[in-house]
Amino acid sequence: MQNSSESNLTDAVIETFAKTENARLQEIMTALVKHLHAFVREVNLTQDEWFAGIQFLTATGKMCDERRQEFILLSDTLGVSTLKDLINNRKPEGLTEWNILGPFYRAGAPEMALGENIAQNETGEPLLVSGRVLAPNGSPIANALLDVWQSDAEGFYDLQKMDASHMDLRGRFHTNENGEYFFRTIKPSYYPIPDDGPVGKMLRAAGRHPYRPAHIHFQISADGYKALTTELYLNGDPYIDSDAVFGVRSSLVIDLEKRDGVLHAHYDFVMEPVSLEKRENVGAE
Amino acid sequence: MQNSSESNLTDAVIETFAKTENARLQEIMTALVKHLHAFVREVNLTQDEWFAGIQFLTATGKMCDERRQEFILLSDTLGVSTLKDLINNRKPEGLTEWNILGPFYRAGAPEMALGENIAQNETGEPLLVSGRVLAPNGSPIANALLDVWQSDAEGFYDLQKMDASHMDLRGRFHTNENGEYFFRTIKPSYYPIPDDGPVGKMLRAAGRHPYRPAHIHFQISADGYKALTTELYLNGDPYIDSDAVFGVRSSLVIDLEKRDGVLHAHYDFVMEPVSLEKRENVGAE
Repeated sequence: MQNSSESNLTDAVIETFAKTENARLQEIMTALVKHLHAFVREVNLTQDEWFAGIQFLTATGKMCDERRQEFILLSDTLGVSTLKDLINNRKPEGLTEWNILGPFYRAGAPEMALGENIAQNETGEPLLVSGRVLAPNGSPIANALLDVWQSDAEGFYDLQKMDASHMDLRGRFHTNENGEYFFRTIKPSYYPIPDDGPVGKMLRAAGRHPYRPAHIHFQISADGYKALTTELYLNGDPYIDSDAVFGVRSSLVIDLEKRDGVLHAHYDFVMEPVSLEKRENVGAE
Repeated sequence: MQNSSESNLTDAVIETFAKTENARLQEIMTALVKHLHAFVREVNLTQDEWFAGIQFLTATGKMCDERRQEFILLSDTLGVSTLKDLINNRKPEGLTEWNILGPFYRAGAPEMALGENIAQNETGEPLLVSGRVLAPNGSPIANALLDVWQSDAEGFYDLQKMDASHMDLRGRFHTNENGEYFFRTIKPSYYPIPDDGPVGKMLRAAGRHPYRPAHIHFQISADGYKALTTELYLNGDPYIDSDAVFGVRSSLVIDLEKRDGVLHAHYDFVMEPVSLEKRENVGAE
C-alpha cells in the first residue's frame, strides 16, 4: 500500500475488497473499482471536474424523496436501466420482448369486459386496441389476464392529476377462447420525464430533450407462462426514435390505422412458457 | 434507436451526447457511459443489485450536509480521490510528492517563530519536527512559508473538539536563511473516517477498517515555486500499510527517533519551480 502509485493503485484498492464475506459483493466491487478507475484514467479527470461530479451526485441524492427518484432517472437517461433490463430479460427469438414497468403501475385496476373503454372521463382521440395472446407455436392462450395502463392525451397518468382513490385509463381484461383481447381507450401522448433537477440539467447541457414517446403499458399473465411486462409504442410519435430513457424496441412499435373513422392498433403477444425444469422445481418446494 | 439492443445500446446512448456544446463534457460523458455500461455487462447486474445500488447512492446523498460529504468519503475509500490526485500532480523524480489536503485545513493559523509549540493545551508525547525546504538542485529556500496542522493524541482536530473561534495544533512558520524549519508539537494519532453512514456500511461489508494512519499536514509556498500540499506519515503506525483512503506514499513516511528523551522527526521538502513558460503566461494575462 505504501508504495501504491498511478500504476498499481487500482490493484491495491481491489485488494482491500479481498476479504468481503459475500462473494457476489466482492465480484461487483472489484469490477466497479476497475471500471471507475479506468474512466478516471481515460479522461484524466481534473480536480475541478471531480468536484463537479461530487456536487452533481450530492444534488441528485438531495432531489430524491417518496415521489421522486432522481438516481433512477439518472440511470434511465444514461441507458443503464435499459441495459440492465435487456441483460436480465434475454428471450428466444419470436417471443414478445420485455419492456420498462415504469413508476405508474397500480395494482387493483378495474376488471372489465372485452370491448369496454378504460378512458372514463377523458377527451382525446378514440383508439381501439386489439390482438391475441399466443403460445410460441401460435396457438391461442385463453383466459390470459392483461393489466393495461397509459397516460391521457396530454401525457398525464391518473396519479398525476387526481387523488389516489380514483383510477382512470387502467383496466384488466381476460382473453376469450380464441386468445383475443380488445378494448377502447384514447390515444396517449408523449410526455417529459421530470427535468427540473440535476438530470434535467445534464440533458440540457447535452442538447437532449426529456421526452418519452407515447406508449401503452401491459402486464400479462397466464397459467404455464412467465409473466410479461412490456409496452407498446405508437408509430409516428415525434419521439419514437429518441426516447429519453432508451425504452423503444422496434418489435414493440405498432402502426395506427384508421378504419371507419376510428384509430385501430393491433398487436399479438407471444408468451414464454415456464420451462419444465422450473415447474418441477416449483413442485418440489 | 428503435432497434437498439444489448449489442448496440451503448453506442446509441453515447450518440445522444454528440450534440453537447461543451466538448470536454461530451468527452467525459462518452467515457462515463462506456465504462458504466462495461461494468453492468461484466457483472451481469441483476434487477435487485441495480436497485440496491440506487438505494446506496440515494442514502449517500442524503447523508451529505455542510459538515459531512459522504460522496467524497465514497470517492476516497474507492481510491478515486487518490487516483485523481496522482494524475493531476505528476512530478519529476526527486520532488516532494503531493498529498491529500483533507477536510480540516483552516486559513489563518497563528504565525509562529521557529521552535515554538503548536500544541497549546494538549497532552501527548512531545515531538520535534525539523527539516529544510529545498530547490531541486539542493539549495535551500529561505523565507518559505509552512502552514502546518494535525490531529491530537486521540486523533481529533481542533474543529472536532471546540468551537470555531479557537485554533490548536496549527501554526505558520517561515524557513530561516538556511532553508530550515523546526517546531514543537505532540505525536498525532491515527483516526477513523466517519463510518456511521453508507460508506461505513460498505467498509464493514468488505471487512475493511476505517482508519487513517497518523500524519501531519503541510502547505508550503515560496516565491518562484509551485505551492505544495502534502502530508508526512509516521512510520510504525498500525495503519501505515492500510490507509482507508489510500493516501500513504512511501516517500512521505518518516521515521521517529528518540534523542535526549524526545521524539524527533526530520523531513526535507523539495519544491517544484514555476516553469519559465508558466511565468510568461502569467505575465501575458
